[in-house]
Amino acid sequence: MKLLEDRILRDGEIYPGDILKVDSFVNHQIDVPFMCELAKEYHRLFSDRKVTKILTIEASGIGIACLTAQVFGVPVLFAKKSRTLNQSSDVYSSTVFSYTHKTENHVTVSKQYLLPTDRVLIIDDFLATGNALFGLTDLCKQAGSEVVGIGTVIEKTYQGGGNKLRELGYDVQSLAMIKSMTDDGKIEFC
Amino acid sequence: MKLLEDRILRDGEIYPGDILKVDSFVNHQIDVPFMCELAKEYHRLFSDRKVTKILTIEASGIGIACLTAQVFGVPVLFAKKSRTLNQSSDVYSSTVFSYTHKTENHVTVSKQYLLPTDRVLIIDDFLATGNALFGLTDLCKQAGSEVVGIGTVIEKTYQGGGNKLRELGYDVQSLAMIKSMTDDGKIEFC
Repeated sequence: MKLLEDRILRDGEIYPGDILKVDSFVNHQIDVPFMCELAKEYHRLFSDRKVTKILTIEASGIGIACLTAQVFGVPVLFAKKSRTLNQSSDVYSSTVFSYTHKTENHVTVSKQYLLPTDRVLIIDDFLATGNALFGLTDLCKQAGSEVVGIGTVIEKTYQGGGNKLRELGYDVQSLAMIKSMTDDGKIEFC
Repeated sequence: MKLLEDRILRDGEIYPGDILKVDSFVNHQIDVPFMCELAKEYHRLFSDRKVTKILTIEASGIGIACLTAQVFGVPVLFAKKSRTLNQSSDVYSSTVFSYTHKTENHVTVSKQYLLPTDRVLIIDDFLATGNALFGLTDLCKQAGSEVVGIGTVIEKTYQGGGNKLRELGYDVQSLAMIKSMTDDGKIEFC
């Protein structure tokens, strides 16, 4: 999506260690009118899937998930992160390794809100190794819900998570796909 | 707001220890079409304030903040929580005691995104003791931004936070104001 690529080139900040910060419009400050354009693009891509629910993970996925849900007219469910494993019988739980923070998190959703009848569109801000998304698809599998699509804002294709998910049969649509990124600030899109 | 009061009476769950769970539409699953009605109500209440930014706190404030920001056509900034104090010179930082989790959190926003020229509308889901909101107003004070209003979804008036904020001169508008709540499930609104 050219609009997004241009914005990343203009406002993204690259830090050593393969870090792309988009805190001015995605991850800390959220440029809501801009993100609404991305939400409409997800609707264009997935409008034929009979989506009943949007699933995301706290915290930075919630904004884009809610704006997308508004276009679809469906609820959002956000998985909660915790350091400790919640083995309550009321939740589905999966384990996610955070690439950014180098910590293991457990993600949970209440069984009450993720149903076998749900047709789930998963939305998240970043896709790199795909760990968060594997956790979310695992929660859907446990619930018996069907994942009808995955939409992410920025994918770093060279980290391989997106292709692993595609090989498993998921329809992953990332609005900007970064092929390479150098510490001196050069970004190349696919 | 009658729409919200009715929904709380229908779907809110009360647990011992003065806990009101609204996980089915506010805090875990977000009923986005419903929350959009609340967002419009905030716009009706605060549309004359020349709002330039909406400030909230991760994680459960982000959804309603983004939906409200869409009506206003402004960005959202969400304060980040951390267990450890971030004393970096790039952020404003304040300390917040969480009533729900009985822990002390530090909340931060990047100095880059909260400006002396900002006219800030603070949006959050719950108002009880007001600790989170005091933290957010403190961040605005540090930045020299003007808080032009505070909108919360559910206020427990008997916990006093709302009135403390009003006494300090803040225009606090809560869409449902709970006067009393009993363990056996009775909720009385103001």
